[in-house]
Amino acid sequence: MAERLVVIGGDAAGMSAASQARRLRGPQELAIVAFDQGNYLSYSACGIPYFVGGVVDELDRLVVRTPEQFATRQDIDARVRHQVTEVDLDKGAVKVTDVDEGTEAWEGFDRLLIATGATPRRPPLPHADADGIFGVQVLDDGRAIFETMRERGPRRAAVVGGGYIGLEMAEAFKMRGLDVTVVERSSHPMPSLDDDIAVLIADAMEGMGIAFHSSEPVEAFEATDGWVSGVVTTKRTIPVDIVVLGLGVDPNVELAAAAGVPIGPSGAIAVDRRMRTGIEGVWAAGDCAEKFHRVSRSPVSIALGTHANKEGRVAGINLGGGYASFPGVIGTAVSKLCDTEVGRTGLNEDEAGAAGFSFITATVDSTTRAGYYPETQPIKTKLLAERGSGRLLGAQIVGKEGAAKRIDVLATAIWNEMSVDELLNIDLSYAPPFSPVWDPVLIAARKAWQLVEQSAKGP
Amino acid sequence: MAERLVVIGGDAAGMSAASQARRLRGPQELAIVAFDQGNYLSYSACGIPYFVGGVVDELDRLVVRTPEQFATRQDIDARVRHQVTEVDLDKGAVKVTDVDEGTEAWEGFDRLLIATGATPRRPPLPHADADGIFGVQVLDDGRAIFETMRERGPRRAAVVGGGYIGLEMAEAFKMRGLDVTVVERSSHPMPSLDDDIAVLIADAMEGMGIAFHSSEPVEAFEATDGWVSGVVTTKRTIPVDIVVLGLGVDPNVELAAAAGVPIGPSGAIAVDRRMRTGIEGVWAAGDCAEKFHRVSRSPVSIALGTHANKEGRVAGINLGGGYASFPGVIGTAVSKLCDTEVGRTGLNEDEAGAAGFSFITATVDSTTRAGYYPETQPIKTKLLAERGSGRLLGAQIVGKEGAAKRIDVLATAIWNEMSVDELLNIDLSYAPPFSPVWDPVLIAARKAWQLVEQSAKGP
Repeated sequence: MAERLVVIGGDAAGMSAASQARRLRGPQELAIVAFDQGNYLSYSACGIPYFVGGVVDELDRLVVRTPEQFATRQDIDARVRHQVTEVDLDKGAVKVTDVDEGTEAWEGFDRLLIATGATPRRPPLPHADADGIFGVQVLDDGRAIFETMRERGPRRAAVVGGGYIGLEMAEAFKMRGLDVTVVERSSHPMPSLDDDIAVLIADAMEGMGIAFHSSEPVEAFEATDGWVSGVVTTKRTIPVDIVVLGLGVDPNVELAAAAGVPIGPSGAIAVDRRMRTGIEGVWAAGDCAEKFHRVSRSPVSIALGTHANKEGRVAGINLGGGYASFPGVIGTAVSKLCDTEVGRTGLNEDEAGAAGFSFITATVDSTTRAGYYPETQPIKTKLLAERGSGRLLGAQIVGKEGAAKRIDVLATAIWNEMSVDELLNIDLSYAPPFSPVWDPVLIAARKAWQLVEQSAKGP
Repeated sequence: MAERLVVIGGDAAGMSAASQARRLRGPQELAIVAFDQGNYLSYSACGIPYFVGGVVDELDRLVVRTPEQFATRQDIDARVRHQVTEVDLDKGAVKVTDVDEGTEAWEGFDRLLIATGATPRRPPLPHADADGIFGVQVLDDGRAIFETMRERGPRRAAVVGGGYIGLEMAEAFKMRGLDVTVVERSSHPMPSLDDDIAVLIADAMEGMGIAFHSSEPVEAFEATDGWVSGVVTTKRTIPVDIVVLGLGVDPNVELAAAAGVPIGPSGAIAVDRRMRTGIEGVWAAGDCAEKFHRVSRSPVSIALGTHANKEGRVAGINLGGGYASFPGVIGTAVSKLCDTEVGRTGLNEDEAGAAGFSFITATVDSTTRAGYYPETQPIKTKLLAERGSGRLLGAQIVGKEGAAKRIDVLATAIWNEMSVDELLNIDLSYAPPFSPVWDPVLIAARKAWQLVEQSAKGP
């Protein structure tokens, strides 16, 4: 009889794993069933702001594959609107509620993949559970926000938390013509950036007419007839018709923890390089699974579709009897706000300090193309390099079109533990429409190496 | 008394070196004099096609620094229109002709930097020295072409040789309204690309209305009253008013060779990592200096401003008493033709075979942004990976806006001798406006790794 693989969670990690496992083992060898409590499988949650803002015209365009496609093309039994409420490891079964029928059933497994994702943080504040306050994590969130826009015609939006998703949603609301306010408890937007880089994001918001209040923790929400009507910060009350939470996410580990699957120090499910949990036959991947940060050497919880896809692939190959390993992350991210692009990788100043590094920082202003070439755009590059070794620890880029994706070169350099001295001579491509003769990345490495050398000489 | 550094050649390599040396040693310690036979110092020759095409409006915008600026800001005595005609190593002096005055003088040196650049190849064919046939290498070439355009109003241009500079010049002439024909002796444009990638460049030329004849060596030129009037190939005679040669360049080593400075197997001046030639006190940098190719492990002659700048920096630091080394090149290049972008790095199929590698190739089609994101553009990525190890050996990218600069990630990977297996899991940035969730680079690495694994299993 075929073994049975049960997958909890039908987004990137779960369905990538299911597909990979199927590729290696046919239906006669391995039955695969996946459950998702929402309405969609295998979608791009990162596309939600672009759907809400009207950049992408239909929600279905964010869906990579439907349950029917999984069934007919890959013989994967993927069931939406099915919520797993309990995992019994002794029995080798999960308890599943059919949301539409209201029925419960136990489904047996030989192997289990937990890909339960993450949930936007909702602060324990008055009226934080009012209607009209949305997280942005699953595709159903995107649908709910869109329907609210259509049905209630909100005029004033507030975004609580100025991280990537918060600012992308702020732009989306702005594109729909709403008055938008972003409230952030820390001193600058995008807390994963250093102040000196993030200030340019604040400038971009101002240029777009988005109100931004930094250093302003939210203390409460106000509600009228159960619907959110105000955001109360330490300094003011902002009248609103709709609120989005951008306070980060928590990995969904309750099912796993209740079943006795070990949780790591980051709060996510502990996994090894092959995405195995501490329990034989139980695997985890995606936002609910802990990641190893290759620079800080710490376990971290980072929710990103790109990691979920890679981890799902690795888990699926291993579940299918192959061999693959996931080597970890280095905190790379990219975003844009109107025409301002921003990218980061590795450690920022706070993170590098916390990891025990002594480091220098080098920041340079350059252009995305040769200075004399039309449409050349400003780009600011900041590098962190370890004192002594010159090892590149982190990088941040902010600029206009063509700026941010250069962060990938720096990510590749960090991945390979390059020093800025090595980096500054690397053979990057050059032609006037693409770069100055010294690419901004290399100019920054040059400056960083100078500072490393100076710091070696002492004061 | 101050030592004296003489620099022959005042473009990127020579003047970068002069600037770095000055930074480390003041005028009391080191006198620096640089000679250039042309009218300009320290310019971007790569910008010539954009000046000829009208994208850049003034030739002076391509000049980074003037002789006056070098004199007043850095105390560097840089003389244009001064041609070095002989190097006497025993005497420690160079013979210099003042082009305007017609006078000759010997100038002594303690250290010498040879940065004489390269000269476009001019085939030994009938009428190859006719007026109206231009190379594109120094800024004076750009000026001569521009003046010809203005004064003679040519209507028909031919470009002989379909490499980067040839195609950039073809586009420039097209932008000026000329009828343009490109003639190439090999089977496809951009011979440093493989056929299957280069075919898309041929398509781009067709789309622009540029006539392209491949596999057509030139046999002669025709001239009328001393001015070029036709290009004779193995198949036809093309009537022309102006011709540009894009047949590559030869390093200018005559002065060095005549003085007894050793020349390397590539035909360029042999140098070590610090840019020292085989003669004590004599250095070389830029297009005239040999480079070490880190993948093929061969000495190569590659003329590129980006290498010239880096080598000049290294030579200058060493000449100034510091320590720096140039680690070599990997053949990275980028170009665009209308809205088609192309990049390459490492070895192509012919080069990998010649270097003794057994390899697989993987080519994937993807998009520059998420598939559902507006303005997403096609991108084709081809990787070469070593059989067995999976080591990335080379990469080629062709596509539309946002495609080509991704070659830098692959260049960084090759630089670090990554395998495609390592590469496919690397933490590159992702957001829908910038990339699909699997960046095209990573999709290509996935496919390459599959092929490496399959080839390990054998047929």
